[in-house]
Amino acid sequence: MKLSLGITADLHVHLRQNKMMELITPTVRQGGVSVVYVMPNLTPPITSIAQVVEYKAQLQKLSPKTTFLMSFYLNQDLTPQLVEQAAQEKLIRGIKCYPAGVTTNSKLGVDPNDFSKFYPIFTVMEKHNLILNLHGEKPSVQSEQNEEDDIHVLNAESKFIPALFKLHKDFPNLKIVLEHCTTKDAIEAVQKINENTTGTPTVAATITAHHLSLTIDSWAGNPINFCKPVAKLPRDKKALIDAATSGKPYFFFGSDSAPHPIHDKSKHIGVCAGVFTQPYVLSYVAEVFEQRNALDKLKDFVGTFGLSFYGITDDELVSKDTVSLAKKDLFIPELIGEKDLQVAPFKPGETLHWEAIWDN
Amino acid sequence: MKLSLGITADLHVHLRQNKMMELITPTVRQGGVSVVYVMPNLTPPITSIAQVVEYKAQLQKLSPKTTFLMSFYLNQDLTPQLVEQAAQEKLIRGIKCYPAGVTTNSKLGVDPNDFSKFYPIFTVMEKHNLILNLHGEKPSVQSEQNEEDDIHVLNAESKFIPALFKLHKDFPNLKIVLEHCTTKDAIEAVQKINENTTGTPTVAATITAHHLSLTIDSWAGNPINFCKPVAKLPRDKKALIDAATSGKPYFFFGSDSAPHPIHDKSKHIGVCAGVFTQPYVLSYVAEVFEQRNALDKLKDFVGTFGLSFYGITDDELVSKDTVSLAKKDLFIPELIGEKDLQVAPFKPGETLHWEAIWDN
Repeated sequence: MKLSLGITADLHVHLRQNKMMELITPTVRQGGVSVVYVMPNLTPPITSIAQVVEYKAQLQKLSPKTTFLMSFYLNQDLTPQLVEQAAQEKLIRGIKCYPAGVTTNSKLGVDPNDFSKFYPIFTVMEKHNLILNLHGEKPSVQSEQNEEDDIHVLNAESKFIPALFKLHKDFPNLKIVLEHCTTKDAIEAVQKINENTTGTPTVAATITAHHLSLTIDSWAGNPINFCKPVAKLPRDKKALIDAATSGKPYFFFGSDSAPHPIHDKSKHIGVCAGVFTQPYVLSYVAEVFEQRNALDKLKDFVGTFGLSFYGITDDELVSKDTVSLAKKDLFIPELIGEKDLQVAPFKPGETLHWEAIWDN
Repeated sequence: MKLSLGITADLHVHLRQNKMMELITPTVRQGGVSVVYVMPNLTPPITSIAQVVEYKAQLQKLSPKTTFLMSFYLNQDLTPQLVEQAAQEKLIRGIKCYPAGVTTNSKLGVDPNDFSKFYPIFTVMEKHNLILNLHGEKPSVQSEQNEEDDIHVLNAESKFIPALFKLHKDFPNLKIVLEHCTTKDAIEAVQKINENTTGTPTVAATITAHHLSLTIDSWAGNPINFCKPVAKLPRDKKALIDAATSGKPYFFFGSDSAPHPIHDKSKHIGVCAGVFTQPYVLSYVAEVFEQRNALDKLKDFVGTFGLSFYGITDDELVSKDTVSLAKKDLFIPELIGEKDLQVAPFKPGETLHWEAIWDN
């Protein structure tokens, strides 16, 4: 049995730097993905044209047939002029916004309680159809006065939603992606914004592979499943699966595959946040869609919808190779890499039932 | 500055077996605790008189001045006759009930949806004033039908509360302790049961040292703070501190100090649940009480109330040494133990401000 997916897209990937980059970048193609949107949270973060050009060249060399879409890291180093130039030269596709302190390499991020100082940049982005990618979490706060004001990993995403509504109101034509949704609240918010949308939406949400199968119980005691935003309650997982299989064009795939060396995941203090799914992304997603009897919705979720939202045209693709999923057992190893750099993939030691195969 | 605590009691401790027992047992006295109630979740669980006698002798040898109260592990190996005999011979103080599968060494525990087969045992316990210690969590369940029926680590304790009410209704004179409360719901339930209580309560709750300072954010990415029940939301922590400092005799101290070798806490999969607080238990608690301006309530919480609920008389104490807290800096090491067995204490590398000192 074979399932044709055409040109596939993973619109949120972490490909890292140096040795990790060398190990991970080829796994994009291994996982059956044609187009990736690359996160800019390197050390230092990507905030210049020179960095974008150099990073993209490094990635392209490691995986010549993958189409890499690049991004800037929103912070005070960016200027409207710089964004204007990058847009005109078609070097970036969007800008990623990290609230300071909520996840890996986010300490140079922004204060999510006040985006106004970036409004001149958003104006340029709107004009050039650049995408604003939001890590939609408020930093944790323990209120002494009012427990309604408490923010913790469980409600951090829900507490961010008013900021999304405000941004959309202030920039109704700015394309915004609420990245790696984990809650029913977030799904409902994006649905609400799109209630009366006809044609291509301006606000969308990405959903990861791992959040389609994790809940809070999955990461309690299993740092391999710990990521930010954390997986939430069973009802949230159901809402994510509903959205991913809904056939609505504003819910599409972004894996947020986030590799860390195994020693950074096996610690009693300070475990790095991130789930690594890249080599098998489509297989994880297919598993969930099959259980839902929704394999007919898979091609749109992992391809058409994201490509359309990002406005990817055929002539931008460095390769027009298409991919299919074949029904066969796929064993997930405990670790990938060599002794000096090993990464544990999601669901190690488990057997999945679909494998990505490049057509030709 | 010195704070006299008299005879102190920690009514929920894990002292383990073999080398771990040898390392941990002396830390009870190091931590300033006179009387401990010892958990029976050994391998195999304690379900016979011979095991109780032997285990107590081992512990007593390791810490001659500590008063050890012993317990049985509730499961099908126990009979009313055996419990009757153990009670008459004053070998046990109570019986611990673990729902199967919710925490360390609980797989031989009971089905918390139906306690009725243990009712003959509870009848004997009620008669002899033995204490029923409840690990109050329902096992996780993902409902396909109704999200109200979902059970996960966050609501597992709240979902257990109806079982507590039923037990109390069916055995109004049975002394019950809801162990290591972590939620506002649990605190309110125990408060409700005691609303009209005069004299010694029959239903009480223990509160740990670590749950007075942890929330869900504390264990996300920090397995050292991962325990069962997991620490919950800020509002729950506030409710626990309110209860501990309330001066109500049905809220008292049980540390649930649960040591694991460091390698079992530093894993990317299958981290053992438990926070190890034993050597510094009183210091952790004093820190929280001081912040709350409630040091005057400390002696009751870590001594009087628990001793009274358990009905400990002076002639049962193997030592009448009393303890005080001295105001001085206390540095918590990163690890305790020797190379072949190391355990990370709670708040490693931090400096606390009260140290337990034995009076004389």
